[in-house]
Parts: sequence; C-alpha cells; structure tokens
Amino acid sequence: MTEPRRRLQTFDDPSHRKGPERIAALRAALREAGIDGFVVPRADEHQSEYVPANAERLAWLTGFTGSAGSAVILAEAAALVVDGRYTLQAPAQVDTGAVSVVPLAEQTAEAWIAEHLGRDRVLGYDPWLHTPDGVARLERAAARAGGTLRALAENPVDSCWAGRPKPPAGRVSAHPEALAGQTAADKLARVRAALAADSCDALVISDPHNLAWAFNLRGADVGHTPLALGYAILPREGRARLFLASDDIDPALTAALDPVAGIAPRLDLDEGLSTLAGARVRLDGATGAVALKERVEAAGGTVDVGKDPITAMKAVKNAAEIAGTRAAHRRDGASVVRFLAWLDAAAAQGGLTEIAAVEALEDFRAAGGDLRDVSFPTISGSGPNGAIVHYRVTRETDRTVRPGDLFLVDSGAQYPDGTTDITRTLAIGTPTPEMRDRYTRVLQGHVAISRAVFPQGTTGAQIDAFARAPLWRAGLDFDHGTGHGVGAFLSVHEGPQRIAKTGTVALEPGMILSNEPGYYAAGRYGIRIENLVLVEPRAIEAGERPMLGFETLTLAPYDRRLIEPALLDAGERAWIDAYHARVREALAPLVDGPARAWLERATEAIGP
Amino acid sequence: MTEPRRRLQTFDDPSHRKGPERIAALRAALREAGIDGFVVPRADEHQSEYVPANAERLAWLTGFTGSAGSAVILAEAAALVVDGRYTLQAPAQVDTGAVSVVPLAEQTAEAWIAEHLGRDRVLGYDPWLHTPDGVARLERAAARAGGTLRALAENPVDSCWAGRPKPPAGRVSAHPEALAGQTAADKLARVRAALAADSCDALVISDPHNLAWAFNLRGADVGHTPLALGYAILPREGRARLFLASDDIDPALTAALDPVAGIAPRLDLDEGLSTLAGARVRLDGATGAVALKERVEAAGGTVDVGKDPITAMKAVKNAAEIAGTRAAHRRDGASVVRFLAWLDAAAAQGGLTEIAAVEALEDFRAAGGDLRDVSFPTISGSGPNGAIVHYRVTRETDRTVRPGDLFLVDSGAQYPDGTTDITRTLAIGTPTPEMRDRYTRVLQGHVAISRAVFPQGTTGAQIDAFARAPLWRAGLDFDHGTGHGVGAFLSVHEGPQRIAKTGTVALEPGMILSNEPGYYAAGRYGIRIENLVLVEPRAIEAGERPMLGFETLTLAPYDRRLIEPALLDAGERAWIDAYHARVREALAPLVDGPARAWLERATEAIGP
Repeated sequence: MTEPRRRLQTFDDPSHRKGPERIAALRAALREAGIDGFVVPRADEHQSEYVPANAERLAWLTGFTGSAGSAVILAEAAALVVDGRYTLQAPAQVDTGAVSVVPLAEQTAEAWIAEHLGRDRVLGYDPWLHTPDGVARLERAAARAGGTLRALAENPVDSCWAGRPKPPAGRVSAHPEALAGQTAADKLARVRAALAADSCDALVISDPHNLAWAFNLRGADVGHTPLALGYAILPREGRARLFLASDDIDPALTAALDPVAGIAPRLDLDEGLSTLAGARVRLDGATGAVALKERVEAAGGTVDVGKDPITAMKAVKNAAEIAGTRAAHRRDGASVVRFLAWLDAAAAQGGLTEIAAVEALEDFRAAGGDLRDVSFPTISGSGPNGAIVHYRVTRETDRTVRPGDLFLVDSGAQYPDGTTDITRTLAIGTPTPEMRDRYTRVLQGHVAISRAVFPQGTTGAQIDAFARAPLWRAGLDFDHGTGHGVGAFLSVHEGPQRIAKTGTVALEPGMILSNEPGYYAAGRYGIRIENLVLVEPRAIEAGERPMLGFETLTLAPYDRRLIEPALLDAGERAWIDAYHARVREALAPLVDGPARAWLERATEAIGP
Repeated sequence: MTEPRRRLQTFDDPSHRKGPERIAALRAALREAGIDGFVVPRADEHQSEYVPANAERLAWLTGFTGSAGSAVILAEAAALVVDGRYTLQAPAQVDTGAVSVVPLAEQTAEAWIAEHLGRDRVLGYDPWLHTPDGVARLERAAARAGGTLRALAENPVDSCWAGRPKPPAGRVSAHPEALAGQTAADKLARVRAALAADSCDALVISDPHNLAWAFNLRGADVGHTPLALGYAILPREGRARLFLASDDIDPALTAALDPVAGIAPRLDLDEGLSTLAGARVRLDGATGAVALKERVEAAGGTVDVGKDPITAMKAVKNAAEIAGTRAAHRRDGASVVRFLAWLDAAAAQGGLTEIAAVEALEDFRAAGGDLRDVSFPTISGSGPNGAIVHYRVTRETDRTVRPGDLFLVDSGAQYPDGTTDITRTLAIGTPTPEMRDRYTRVLQGHVAISRAVFPQGTTGAQIDAFARAPLWRAGLDFDHGTGHGVGAFLSVHEGPQRIAKTGTVALEPGMILSNEPGYYAAGRYGIRIENLVLVEPRAIEAGERPMLGFETLTLAPYDRRLIEPALLDAGERAWIDAYHARVREALAPLVDGPARAWLERATEAIGP
C-alpha cells in the first residue's frame, strides 16, 4: 500500500486582519531606531517571484499575498503599491484604513514617497531586498521630498515578527545531463566567454534560477519552482564557488561539480566576496542586492552592474530541453484532457466547486506520472472569480459552479523534463452571445500570436498588439501582458523574453513563451486562453529575410461551445481545426474511456 | 514683372573626395593637442536634425551628408557609424580607405571606441555637441578600452576648416497667435506648472523647436525648419530670457514678448547661466549640451537632467494648429494632384528626370500659395534610386525615368499654418506582378495603421507591427520606423511620438504622425506610401475603454495601377475607396483642367 500523496496546494486564506497592529508595531520599532519610514517590498534576497516563507514580510505585515507589490510605512501614512493584476485583490486583503492601496498605473512607490515622505525625514530600507537601481530610485524619491534614504543592517520587520519561519534548507540535487542537454563545465565556459567579452573578471550569480541552470542543480527552497537559494562566484579563471542556504546536498551533485565548482555554506558568502579585491565584478542589475555591491566594493573590487549573461543563455532552450518540454506537454495534455472531460461531467451533475476542480486537476496530473509540483497555485475562477486575473481560491472564496458561468482554469506543472502552463476557459451550461463574442475575440488574438511570422530581431513588444487588435476593434482590452517566458523545469515565469509592452528583447529560436490574451468583465466572468509556444525559424518561399514563428507546445482543446464561427476568417478557422487535429492525434493514444470520447468530440472541426 | 522665385532646393553634390586630406589635417591637430582621437557627431549645439552650415563638421570632414551619424577619428583608424537609412549612401560618399563605414545595427560608436581606442589613450570631444548621457556613454566606452575621455574647449575640426561658414543670423519674427492658438504667456504658465510639479526652479530651453513653440516665434537659421537658434532661461518666477544667435529680430516680436520675456544676444548666455546659483535647473536630456550642465553647476546650480516639458506640450496640437494643418494639407494636396497629373503626362512623353520632378513639384507648391520652404529636400528616386531610403538627387545621380520603373517621391512643405510630408510611389509604364504584390502589401500595412483602433495609453511601438505584418507574411520587411511625429509649421520630424520600435510614449489626441511603411528592392526599386495622420478619440459602440484612432490629414490618390485588388480584403478595399472619395471631394473644387480630369480617374473605386 502506498502512502497517500501529499497535496501540493492548500486553500487556507493566508491573509489576515492584523495589519493595523503589525504596522503599529513596525512604527514603534522605526521610532526607536530613529527612522521615519521603511520600505517593505514583496522580495527576497534574490528578487525572486516565489519567495520562502521567512521572506514573506509584506504578507505578514499587510495581509496582501500577491506576487508583486511594495509597501511604504511612514509615521502618519502607509501605502501598498500594486500592479494591475492586484488592484482588485489588494483592497480585499488589506485593511485599507491602515494602508492605502495605490495602483501602480496611477503612482509608483517612488512617486508616493516623493509626495508623502516629507522634508528632513529618513526613509529606511533593507539592502538585501533592493537592487542598486532600485535604491537609486528610492534615493531620488526621498531627495525630491527633501528627505534622505538610509540602509538598515537589520530588517525592522523581522524584530516585530514573532514566529517568523526559519530559512528554507531543501534538498539540493543534480539535474541529469540528459535533460539539461549540456554539462555545467560547458555552460560555465560559455559564461566565461561572455564575461571576457565584457571585460569582467568575475560574475556574482545572484539569481537562483541562473544558479540552477549553470550548475545543473535543482532545489526545494521555495514553492513551485525547484530552486536552491544561494549565490555563486564565478571567476574568469579557476573554480567557481557556490554558497547555498541548504546543507542537504546530494553527494552526487558535489562530486559531479567538483572539477568546476566547490559548494560552501551561505554563511561563507561574505568571505567569498572579500576575495574579489581588484577584480571587475559583474553583478546582475535585476536580481543582485545592493548589499552584494557594497561588499564587493568594500573588498576593493569594482562592480559592473549589468546583465548576468546566464539569463539570456538559459532563455534559449537546447535540443534536450526542447525534447523534454515537448514530452512534458504531451503528458500534461493527456492529464488536462482527462480533467476537462471529468469537469464537463461534474459540472453537468451540479455541485462542482472551484477547489474540487483544483484537486481533481492535481490528482489527474499526479496520476499522469513524474509530477514534481504544480508550477504555480492553480487559478480556478468561476463566474465573477474568473475576472480576478490572479485569483487564488480559498475555503472562504470557494464557489459552486453554476449553469451560465464561465470557468477559467489556469494551471501548470513541474516535471523533471519540463514546465507547463495552460489556461482554458469553459462554458458551464449555455453561454450568452456576449460571452461567445468575447471568447472568440480572445481566441482570435491568441490565434494571431500562434500564426505570427516576424523577422529575426523582433521583440515581444512588437507583436503584443496582434493579440489585442480583435478586442481593440470592439473597444475592449486586457490589463496584462500577452505572454511571459517559461523555463525548462525551472520558473514558469522566466525572463528576459516576454510578449508584452515591456518585452524589449529579441525573440530567438528556442525561447518558450506563453500566449495568453484574456478579457475580464469585472463581477461577472473572466476569459483567458493560454498555450505555451516555442520560437522557431520559419522558412517562407521567396522571402528575403530570416523569419521566425511559433510552434505551439501545449496540447488541449479550446471550448468549441464558446467559439462564434461567424467572427472568424478562413485562416483563423483553418488554424483552429489544424490545432485540434494535432491535439487529437497526439493525445488520443494516451487517453481512453470517456476521456477519449470527450477528446474526439472536443476536437471536431469548426468547419467553414 | 515679378522677380524670379528663388529655388528652395539645389542639386549640387555636397560631398567631396577630400576626406583623406582633411582627416590627416585633423589628426595633425589632435597630435599637437596631445589627444589620441576625436568624436565628430553630426550635431550642432542643439542636437538638431537640420544643422546650420557652420556645424556641418561631419560632412566637411568625411563627405557624408546624411542627417545622422558619428565619426570617430583615431590615429590609426577611423569609423563612421550610420543607421540603416544610410548604409548604402555612406559608403558611396566617403573614402572608405580613410574611414570605415560601420552600420549602427552591427556596432555602436561606443562599441567601436571600446574596441579600437586602446589602453591609456585619450579621446576628445566637444562638450557643446554631446548631451550628458552621450558623454557618459563615451566615458564608459573609453573606460572599457582602458582609456579616458577629455572635453576640449575648442573643436579641433574648426581650426582645420578653412572657409568655415559664419553662424546663421536669420530674421526672427512672431508666429501669429491665430495660428499658434495660445499666447506665449499662457504657454509659459503651463511650462512653469510642469516645473513646479517636478520641484524645479528653472528651465534651460536648449531645443530651438521648443523655443519657437513656447515664445511663438519663428526664424530662418537652418534649412527647411523655421528655427531661430538660441536658448532661453525660464525661471519659475519672473521674466524669461532668450539668448538668440541672430540680432535681426522683428521689433513686433520683442514688443509682444516684453511682458513675459527679454531677448539678449547669444553671447550673454554664460552670464545668464551664472545667475542660477542655488537653483534646481531642468535641462533637457535629449538636446541640452553637457556644456550647459557644466556652466550651471559651475555657477552653483543643481542640474536635473530630464525632459523639457515643452516637448510633450508641443506634440499635442491645439484646435488652431489642427485647423491650420488641415488647411495646409488641402492646399498641399491640390498642388500634389497637379504634380501627379503632370508627372503622368511627362513620364508618358519620355525624358522625365528626377530633378525635373523635384522642380516641378516645388513650382506647383509655390504656385499654390503661402509656401515658405520645403519641409525637407525632396526624395525623388526612380528605379534603383528609389531603394535608397533617404536618397537625395544630385546632378550626378540624376536619372531619366523609364517605362517599367517605379518612381518614389517623398516631399513636404512648410506653410505658415502647417507642415506637410507625403510619399507617393508611381508606376511608370506597366509594373511587374512583383511590384504590384509589394506595393499592395505596403499599402495594406499603411491602411492597417490608418484603420487602427487602440486604447488610450497605447504607444507607437505597440502598433508599428500592424504596418509590417502583410510584408512579414511574405518574408519581407523595411528597415525604418513606420512613422515620425510632425510639427505645426515646425520640424517635419518632431518627437516624442513615433510609430516605431522606439516609440515609447503614449499616443495622444492632437498628435500628428506620419504613416509610411515601405519596401526596398536594392538596385531595382523602392516603394513607400506616406500620409500624415492625426490622433483622435474614437467612439466605439458598446466599447468599455476610451479608444483612439487616426484621422488621415494628407489628401492625394494612391496609384491604383499598382494595387492588386485580389490581395485586399473587403475592409481594406472599402477604406481605400472611401479615402479616394474623400480626396476627390476635398480637392476637386481646387483643381481644374487636366489635373481635375486626372483626379477623377485616379480616385475611382477599386470595387469589390
């Protein structure tokens, strides 16, 4: 008899109503320290998206559990600045009497500081939680208010936080070369060549994703992304040194890395940085804490704040990673098809809840094999909950799905060979003509990205509007990017590639991105359709330039009940039919019984 | 009898073959000054696009006459870095034995410096010709090479340049309030409010376009743009001070400005800057020379390098400017129609040359009335010359148009009420199927921009690809932006709005832009289709968001002989037919005889 599977997702509401008292405690601590305010970003020491429990200071302080945001606590005012994803969630989670929620589109944290800090006031910050650029912005903001910024050696939130969790120390193991596609030694040689081209003598690796990629290791320090928290120092010559928070390290990894790198405890990092006297040291501007810069400079090194070259290398997947990702998507697609077939039946029976859907989907994925984790907490939003872009169902918000609802399920999985991320929006009962119109427009945008052909050098920002034009024509839009980069058994949100206004790097063959336009009718329903796509070369007959396009990796039917064929042109219909035929061909051998019958029906041609 | 009209355009080749000897002379001057290299940007003291003759140092030195580029002269190597518009022209104009032409897409001037300057070498620059950011980039480049950067008090090119022209001193006159739409006093109040919001005590206006707009003045110091070169200091309180290069100032202007501003000679600028002790002074990062920053700082002021707020205000045209621009386009459209009718007939007779077309178009515009200048030298490129994006015909390159050619004419005019810019590509004789295919794809991109609907806040970068998608689908593209901003009786290239990868500001109602996709078959033909468009609010029935679209300002037919109707969808055909009907309705009353008959034929419907 096997042990019952440990569930990967829970549904307790992590928010709380203790914001006012905790903020009061923080204010008292600030007064004692002679500080007039403090910045509490949703950040850990690596600027990661998923942070360990001991770094969830913003959630502990305010109750806000979103993945991005920043609070500024002053003596007489406090603000929580959140982006468009969280403008509905944040006011619902925090005590808005104690903290004003400020939409980022209206005011940045820096602009709020400039307006509220006040002359001669001192604003504190934790130098492990901000990059040098971030500190420079805070400095300018404080200066505009006539105040100053001060680094604090200890984070005052921590002294107020009774029962703060311990730092994580998960198992660190080797990522097999068959899946990684390249040895750590070969990867480090490429990184060193990039350092040489930029006249740098060493690299401080501050991004745990880059650590995982470069050294072919995986960890378990944060939820949903197999990261080992830590740093590395990679000199142009000689062995690299890793500084890992965990000491639970697979000896096979230590042995495999031995020729190229040694592993030391995280506590040795200061000593490691102190050896960089005289060196020109590259520090990643996006993830490197200003504390690292200060330590290198104190040791007599010069810091070149720029890009960790690993970020761009990691983004372009090699043949082994692509093959693994394709396999992961076939496996995941079969589980998703079983889930969708189950969901149709369960919804028809009545009583289906959002949490039941999350658990069923997780169970189907676990049964499909090789599941290591979900790649993020499943977004399971029916009816009005679907309009909350980053909704996370809790016992309190859980809702029974009703006829006439749309049901938005955005989920993904971590397999050893790849990371998945898929959104399907489903009709429960009979959808309204408006729902079909909106769904079809979102689908047209999604298909426009899928079919896009563009020259080498094109950025995601340049094609983002292809996904929006069908909505724009109707006076509609959605308030998030069209796509984010995705890792290979790494983060489901990986840069630098994006299909968004902010996607300013060129798309390159081997990059994986999501393609997920949406439409949100606040208080009524949400629509999002998401596949992952792989950038690939695209040969065009009689074309003159090297062109690129996308291979769709995700395999699962769209909901044909929500498609209004009259809105589609012939090219769009043909693409959808061809995709459905491909889904059927790939997945039919993997599913049977009612799921197989469901798949056959769901992938029928829309026709002309 | 009236005096013969002075022609606005000449066709002498301003380039020369004296590059090697002039570069040798500069190198001797550098050696004497103990400097190892010098940067020669195509720039004047205001970073203007059109520079006065005395600032044409790059053309004097190298022979390259493009509107952008930068030479770096070292003892043993020299490079001219040019953007995609000039990668064909530059090697044809300069002695590539003496100067290597480097495409910007391959290497920036800074990267070239980093590679070639050499350790311990000193690179000189003229602090009046570089912005603080530009100097910082040069400093980093020199540092990467192990060298240093040094500001030179005198530009060493000037000491080598025998017969260097005197600085311009054209007439400066008032721009009537009826055309400007707002008094200088009202404009300055808006600028001061913007300075207050940014906590600045004063603004140094370094951009002559902004000087012209803010003080409702126009000058004659550079070709094609009615600028008076100079600066202004605008304090938060008290009168502004203008420092103008010219002393030929209309007393009416002096009197009109007297309540808000005094006019001083350019030579008094240093004295003016010395009064800014203790002030926080905004300096425009795009046009303000580092020399200005140094002078303010030497006087004890603090420089806030940012945006001159006038740039954004000037970009949004008021009702008077829009009405004037519409009137200018009707007048210009009638002249263009007369020209196109003439050109069809002249081409049929044979012997038509590119220069003859330029002169005829200028004559038609002059006869149309109110012509102050062309807004830039007409691009009149037949056959292979059409593929040179910024071709400028000279007596040497002039070409007789032949049957089977495409003829690309890109031109514009300065009228007191508005600035125009239009490109039409014309079939001479019978075009090939390939030409019709390419023309139609370019037109589809142009129509896609014309029809675009997008939410408030959308940038030009987001919609640029709409103009490219029909070409991309065929593996084709063009190497320039889709559109640039245009002034109101000011520069034909005005920022910050652009429809291009680099167009990162939101499009706002009242902004004027060009819409000019193209296709260039090197050595064979060029196609470009350009109208100016005005951003306007666009009401959408049942839409949820404030949307914007474009009103097309330019009025002139496309060449229907080059349109392949089978490539167009119904929406595209309807838009073209409606536009042609509008052109006919607007211009038919203004033209008669053969031009009227030509217009009627040229604007017939394409039909279904």
